Amino acid sequence: MSLSLGQIVGALGGTLELAGSDTEIFRIAPLDSAGPGDLSFLSNPRYQQQLAASKAACVIVAPAMREAAMQRGACIVADNPYVYFARATQLWKQHEQAHQVRCGVHPSAVVDPLAEVDPTAYVGPLCVVERGARIGAGTVLKSRVTVGENCSVGARCILHSGVVLGADGFGFAPERGTWVKIEQLGAVRVGDDVEIGANTCIDRGALDDTVIENGVKLDNLVQIGHNVHLGAHVAMAGCAGVAGSARIGAHCTVGGGAVVLGHLELAENVHVSAATVVMRSLNKPGVYTGVFPVDENNKWEKNAATLKQLHSLRERIKALEQQQQQDSKNGTQ
Amino acid sequence: MSLSLGQIVGALGGTLELAGSDTEIFRIAPLDSAGPGDLSFLSNPRYQQQLAASKAACVIVAPAMREAAMQRGACIVADNPYVYFARATQLWKQHEQAHQVRCGVHPSAVVDPLAEVDPTAYVGPLCVVERGARIGAGTVLKSRVTVGENCSVGARCILHSGVVLGADGFGFAPERGTWVKIEQLGAVRVGDDVEIGANTCIDRGALDDTVIENGVKLDNLVQIGHNVHLGAHVAMAGCAGVAGSARIGAHCTVGGGAVVLGHLELAENVHVSAATVVMRSLNKPGVYTGVFPVDENNKWEKNAATLKQLHSLRERIKALEQQQQQDSKNGTQ
Amino acid sequence: MSLSLGQIVGALGGTLELAGSDTEIFRIAPLDSAGPGDLSFLSNPRYQQQLAASKAACVIVAPAMREAAMQRGACIVADNPYVYFARATQLWKQHEQAHQVRCGVHPSAVVDPLAEVDPTAYVGPLCVVERGARIGAGTVLKSRVTVGENCSVGARCILHSGVVLGADGFGFAPERGTWVKIEQLGAVRVGDDVEIGANTCIDRGALDDTVIENGVKLDNLVQIGHNVHLGAHVAMAGCAGVAGSARIGAHCTVGGGAVVLGHLELAENVHVSAATVVMRSLNKPGVYTGVFPVDENNKWEKNAATLKQLHSLRERIKALEQQQQQDSKNGTQ
Repeated sequence: MSLSLGQIVGALGGTLELAGSDTEIFRIAPLDSAGPGDLSFLSNPRYQQQLAASKAACVIVAPAMREAAMQRGACIVADNPYVYFARATQLWKQHEQAHQVRCGVHPSAVVDPLAEVDPTAYVGPLCVVERGARIGAGTVLKSRVTVGENCSVGARCILHSGVVLGADGFGFAPERGTWVKIEQLGAVRVGDDVEIGANTCIDRGALDDTVIENGVKLDNLVQIGHNVHLGAHVAMAGCAGVAGSARIGAHCTVGGGAVVLGHLELAENVHVSAATVVMRSLNKPGVYTGVFPVDENNKWEKNAATLKQLHSLRERIKALEQQQQQDSKNGTQ
Repeated sequence: MSLSLGQIVGALGGTLELAGSDTEIFRIAPLDSAGPGDLSFLSNPRYQQQLAASKAACVIVAPAMREAAMQRGACIVADNPYVYFARATQLWKQHEQAHQVRCGVHPSAVVDPLAEVDPTAYVGPLCVVERGARIGAGTVLKSRVTVGENCSVGARCILHSGVVLGADGFGFAPERGTWVKIEQLGAVRVGDDVEIGANTCIDRGALDDTVIENGVKLDNLVQIGHNVHLGAHVAMAGCAGVAGSARIGAHCTVGGGAVVLGHLELAENVHVSAATVVMRSLNKPGVYTGVFPVDENNKWEKNAATLKQLHSLRERIKALEQQQQQDSKNGTQ
Repeated sequence: MSLSLGQIVGALGGTLELAGSDTEIFRIAPLDSAGPGDLSFLSNPRYQQQLAASKAACVIVAPAMREAAMQRGACIVADNPYVYFARATQLWKQHEQAHQVRCGVHPSAVVDPLAEVDPTAYVGPLCVVERGARIGAGTVLKSRVTVGENCSVGARCILHSGVVLGADGFGFAPERGTWVKIEQLGAVRVGDDVEIGANTCIDRGALDDTVIENGVKLDNLVQIGHNVHLGAHVAMAGCAGVAGSARIGAHCTVGGGAVVLGHLELAENVHVSAATVVMRSLNKPGVYTGVFPVDENNKWEKNAATLKQLHSLRERIKALEQQQQQDSKNGTQ
């Protein structure tokens, strides 16, 4: 497949410099591995060295980099080169898949007669859409996705393979050493433009619904407990987990493998680092971290063992300080 | 859908106060969001304030709260309100789904002719039940569940979508830098009344079986390695993992994202906090935790950097103490 | 099922001592639970006590243990008893499944006409193999596996149930508080002799491919981000995760629940302990760990609280040291 620079600029805007609009592009590639038929991009001025050395046919750059880029050769000048690059990948994919049908229900999918699937949505092979579920316009369920009873998915969403929407939340009442099931009577409501990664699970609510607002992006193998509320445009990386009834504000990001405990609240624009465990509500925007630093195993062993005495070490420091104060008093007497 | 208070008390017991048995209930809801057609519950005396303010048609309360509840309005008095609430959700679900068939094998499921499925069990859409597998009475496999060769599931279990029972345990013998597969000749045996969350995996044993005792509850995306033994009524929250050959005693709970390493033993009634890594056997009942506390990223960076010198800090404290002792001796001479 | 010791030694080599080659073996079992019809093995001299006490019909031992083993009874002497045991499990499985067909495409699988499946490969029930995907000779896709568009799997691989190969990598460009999707134009390339555990996900690359080299073994619920490169014979235990563009050298091992952050490099023969978070490249072979040690909850609480003051504790130790030096100088004056 190929696209001409003219097609690209025609579709996405930007100013083409030092190249004819009929120049053919055969691939999109990073600066360092791009070859003579490739389109590349410079989103971070730190990589300016790579720009100069790149063999790309054309490089997408910001206005500030225009001169530097033109010294090397052809470029497209665009306000936000990274977003331009993102849209270029979309254009590429569109052309690549022009001949593929992407709406309707695959014959191997099991869709309940009482489910509503928008005619412009696509339900892929071996998906299950249960009674009362609703799938919005332009939404794509890749393959082997389950959308449970009464759960709804908005418009233009992508649910990757193996996603489970609407399994029962984890709710049991303890009774004499056994667990009595609390039936989960709520559902899951997913907004528009949401993407959900492979094998990710979002549980239905116990009484009310679990809610995923517009524009949320979840990576693979993420776990969202019952009655969680994810604000608009939240992004969560792989293997992250949010326990029941937590509320995460709009525009938050949660790193891979991070855990947010139940019933907590995260303000808008809170950023949780990878593998961090959030054990208290975070009411102020900012970056939060809590990870044991990796070390050579024998060094870690010593530090970890000492960590168990940390509180008593503090007491010993206090004692030393008091004694020193005492001594210095005595010394001055 | 609606149920009358008479139907509820008739089915579940308890004493109805200040309301006619023909009062209709349209929803079960938390105290703070319940409206005039709703049934709610007070399980924790701490929420007594919410009780007084609740607009619920009727509230389930313990005998000790009877007077307080009646000052507000209608109530059901029951010994354990939380368990009563759980059973009310079950009653609700039962009525809601009265018209749905929940036994037999969905035509899209692939069940080996040499598997045994109890006639009262339900095998949902796109499930796979392999040769020699056995599914007990009243057990439900939601959708897209795999029960592997020779694995058995007891009575009244629920396996949510995407569960994989009986994939090979992770066993390899190292030979000159490569891995020689150890075929996993055991199976998985699951007891009665077990619930297994979406996309959770339980591996078959290497030589003997992996065993899940009666009443165990596992949340989503949990990993149970080969030859693990989970005692009766163990509960494990989402994304928890148990490595090969670990034994977890009855009535233990494991928090979300926690990890139990291989070959360890946990006594009965051990409770592991979320995201904690259990690296040694825990022989005494109790609550165990090991999580790096979350902090603002710049504060964390300082503390994490210092943590790598913790052992040497202890040495410096020792040295300070010795010197101080020496000084004080010298001082008294 | 049974195999004679003669069949076993005939297939796998080794020297049979103190038993006729027609002795029948009915099971392979660990030393401590093996009975009179069972074959067992001693791979670690530490378990020599168990050897003496074992009731096994025959025990696989190393040449150095030959005399000790013969004092107990029958044995097979082999250079590497653990590898011999592994191959014995393979022989066992082979015989057990001699009558089962294990090639071709199950009628319930959905294989695109433009996918290439080697005639000796097996595509199990309810798998999805998309357009342009390639499945190599002798490879087995258990059940409910998805191999995405243009992804390739080499020869003799095993993909367990629920595996998703080739879902979109997690890539978005931020634009005014929303996320613009970066289409993932690369694929996944899996080498030969790779085993991938249940519900594990390997994402397709953004521009180039995600690469899994020969002989890699991944356990269940593992997450491999886009453009990751796993060197030959890497092994990763359950719930581990590798973020985008990380490169892990040949022969590395990653423990269960461990996380490797994006764009890092691990040299060959790096061993990451379970639940460790790798936040920097590791250029030297060795064992690396970073886990908060588990403790009784009340002790943990004290130490965790103190940990937040660790940096300031170091400052206080410094101050104490300086004062002490000052004092001792003053003392000697």
